Amino acid sequence: MSKDKHQKTLDSLPPVAGNGLLDRRALLGQGILMAGAAVAGVGASATGAAAEPLKDDPWSTTMGGPTPLRQQPSKFEKHVVRVLSNLKHEPRNSHARTPHHLINGSITPSALHFTINHSGIPDIDPAKHRLVIHGMVRQPKIFSLEDLDRYPMVTRTAFIECGGNSAPMFSSEPMQVTAQALHGLVSNSEWTGVMLSTLLDEVGVDPKASWFLAEGGDSCALHRSVPIKKGWDDAMIALYQNGERVRPGTGYPMRLLLPGYQGNMNVKFLRRIKLIDQPAMSFYEAKTYSQVLPGERLWKFHFLQEVKSFITHPSFGHSLKGPGYYDISGVAYSGTGRIARVMVSADGGKSWAEAALQGPTNPQAFTRFRAPWRWDGKPAILQSRAWDEAGNVQPLRAEIIANRGQSSQPVTNPNVFINQHYNSITSWGIDGKGEIKHVYA
Amino acid sequence: MSKDKHQKTLDSLPPVAGNGLLDRRALLGQGILMAGAAVAGVGASATGAAAEPLKDDPWSTTMGGPTPLRQQPSKFEKHVVRVLSNLKHEPRNSHARTPHHLINGSITPSALHFTINHSGIPDIDPAKHRLVIHGMVRQPKIFSLEDLDRYPMVTRTAFIECGGNSAPMFSSEPMQVTAQALHGLVSNSEWTGVMLSTLLDEVGVDPKASWFLAEGGDSCALHRSVPIKKGWDDAMIALYQNGERVRPGTGYPMRLLLPGYQGNMNVKFLRRIKLIDQPAMSFYEAKTYSQVLPGERLWKFHFLQEVKSFITHPSFGHSLKGPGYYDISGVAYSGTGRIARVMVSADGGKSWAEAALQGPTNPQAFTRFRAPWRWDGKPAILQSRAWDEAGNVQPLRAEIIANRGQSSQPVTNPNVFINQHYNSITSWGIDGKGEIKHVYA
Repeated sequence: MSKDKHQKTLDSLPPVAGNGLLDRRALLGQGILMAGAAVAGVGASATGAAAEPLKDDPWSTTMGGPTPLRQQPSKFEKHVVRVLSNLKHEPRNSHARTPHHLINGSITPSALHFTINHSGIPDIDPAKHRLVIHGMVRQPKIFSLEDLDRYPMVTRTAFIECGGNSAPMFSSEPMQVTAQALHGLVSNSEWTGVMLSTLLDEVGVDPKASWFLAEGGDSCALHRSVPIKKGWDDAMIALYQNGERVRPGTGYPMRLLLPGYQGNMNVKFLRRIKLIDQPAMSFYEAKTYSQVLPGERLWKFHFLQEVKSFITHPSFGHSLKGPGYYDISGVAYSGTGRIARVMVSADGGKSWAEAALQGPTNPQAFTRFRAPWRWDGKPAILQSRAWDEAGNVQPLRAEIIANRGQSSQPVTNPNVFINQHYNSITSWGIDGKGEIKHVYA
Repeated sequence: MSKDKHQKTLDSLPPVAGNGLLDRRALLGQGILMAGAAVAGVGASATGAAAEPLKDDPWSTTMGGPTPLRQQPSKFEKHVVRVLSNLKHEPRNSHARTPHHLINGSITPSALHFTINHSGIPDIDPAKHRLVIHGMVRQPKIFSLEDLDRYPMVTRTAFIECGGNSAPMFSSEPMQVTAQALHGLVSNSEWTGVMLSTLLDEVGVDPKASWFLAEGGDSCALHRSVPIKKGWDDAMIALYQNGERVRPGTGYPMRLLLPGYQGNMNVKFLRRIKLIDQPAMSFYEAKTYSQVLPGERLWKFHFLQEVKSFITHPSFGHSLKGPGYYDISGVAYSGTGRIARVMVSADGGKSWAEAALQGPTNPQAFTRFRAPWRWDGKPAILQSRAWDEAGNVQPLRAEIIANRGQSSQPVTNPNVFINQHYNSITSWGIDGKGEIKHVYA
């Protein structure tokens, strides 16, 4: 970083891909003159140390408000909320989607973490809640929360994504909705808890056990089968989310965390783990999440959430205020491991520039990517495409539609999951006025 | 991780330091039999895949509650709040301390981030707020929040610590209070914003400028002087905290982030940066934060928050429920850079075991450390001591008291800061009943 370079203007930075994408190293502070900054007419002559307070604003002239026990967002941020699918609390499932177009960084605030609950949010007394581990074990055991609090804990960051996230992307016409409506069923938190392997050691697993059943304490007793290998590898009984106890909709007082696996398997309100020697063929694994494919094929046990990315800024719901510099950013993640590379296009995929990845890049976690962009005021199509450390790449849209099929008509209710596990590209079309539409490109 | 090792019991793990401290690799899942787990009498014979739901709990038999726009903590977590110093909102400063003994992981939830405000919390309209950069610059400029949103952003994790954090540790008798009361003026967040260097490039800094003055938009117009080098190195105009817009008490809509520097310098509600050629000698740098030392000496401009750690679990306010295994954990951080090593003692510093560090270890950020411990039911004194990557180490208590002095009497009001920048060791004394006291050792 040098203060000698401040004369360097944005125009001197060479584009690295079509429609104004700049080298990502522009992010490292080369002194790029922004079009968006206004010229000031104040204080230009002051060179001394004395302060001349600017007392124009009402909040600068009167005592401010009291300090609360827990601080909440500003009243000016009331629009930053989840979108709900079941406003009348009818006896069915209820979705709440993360507003990706209104937040930034990599952590999803716990208040805004997506949730899907199938029989409401249980009001669980943590002193009475128990976790049972039984089945094909040497010694079945019951654990209270107080018991688990004494065990060795681990802290890690992980995304959780619903297998049905981005399902509206399978519609034949691009839905004109935000990234929240399209992709709001994925979120990213720092989780702290006890590794399931520690508890499996405690109960002594029969070598013939090949799966475990995880069951929640909500009134639908949601349960899923998980291969035993995942239990030994990296499954966690998560007790804390972003520092605090897991929130009610997210599984309070404990949930199963299966990094990179379909959200529905990360059983909330976890009350039971049963070691078994075959999958239970429960409702959610035998029906809902058995994906029907073209040609009368079906995917059984497609657990992994594959490599994916989408641009959050700018995106549908935003608009560009005239030509000039913009910071393109979004999130990338892969159930397989770390994100290795994200490419960004401003011309609908004709040319690509490598985005800067915001480190540290944690496995099975959001990586925020950023790409500097100089918009010339002409139509553009923004896209991102991610690779993970195992070499997996987001498929092109034509590829995933060929493999998975497409809805025959626009999906007007984003809760109707026609297809699942969409991990292809999202395209934002920008017109000459800076208005943004969702397009297929 | 091997399922063959589950027979291994806790007793077979060799201690690595006095009073039952175990090798930190025990955390990696060697199959340690815990004393705290109850033996269950259910389901031991089941080997099949069928589910037998346990429908004992009321929340498992009825539809749960509705999904909110923003999810809040469970009603059973109402005690997890900040401790406030100015309940009547009198016209003076107001502290809110982070409950370190009740949270876990590395991120401090934004609702629980510590705050100190000197003239209340201003209710700032982000559309009207402006940041002015002027003084010794080529071209002074005014930035709206909308302007800043277009600039290249960076996401990083950083702690912020008040220079007066842990001041009660200078009292001549150990205060019987929680880690929250002792050390609650430090917190750790993921911050996203625009590097100050980017904006300094924009305005063109006069080479003769050696400091900058940062001023807040609250009614005390809190302002501090910062060496210009920090501005070029890693100062950030933080716009987002843990994914969301910075919360009101934490500086909404924008604050200065000076990683590793005294909290008070991280000016909130930032409205002005003035490039100057000498420090402004403002109230907080000339009076409050000029530390008086023994022998009529004084520290001027002691900005760095030095390497430090404290144990949060177990600590004052907890109690041990009988002998057996416990997971000791706490936080370590250094204004200089990354944490390199944390040692833990269970015998008041006679012997030490190396703690496991929860990665990734980010610079100028909390690192959660953990040490496995088998308590034999006899008196013990728990301590932690941290080293940073530059080789700095937490001083022993005798050293810091010799260098900084001590209060002549117990500090009954933890808001009276007699000394500052305490970064020595905290000791938790455990008696034979498992009760925990704050001790000096």
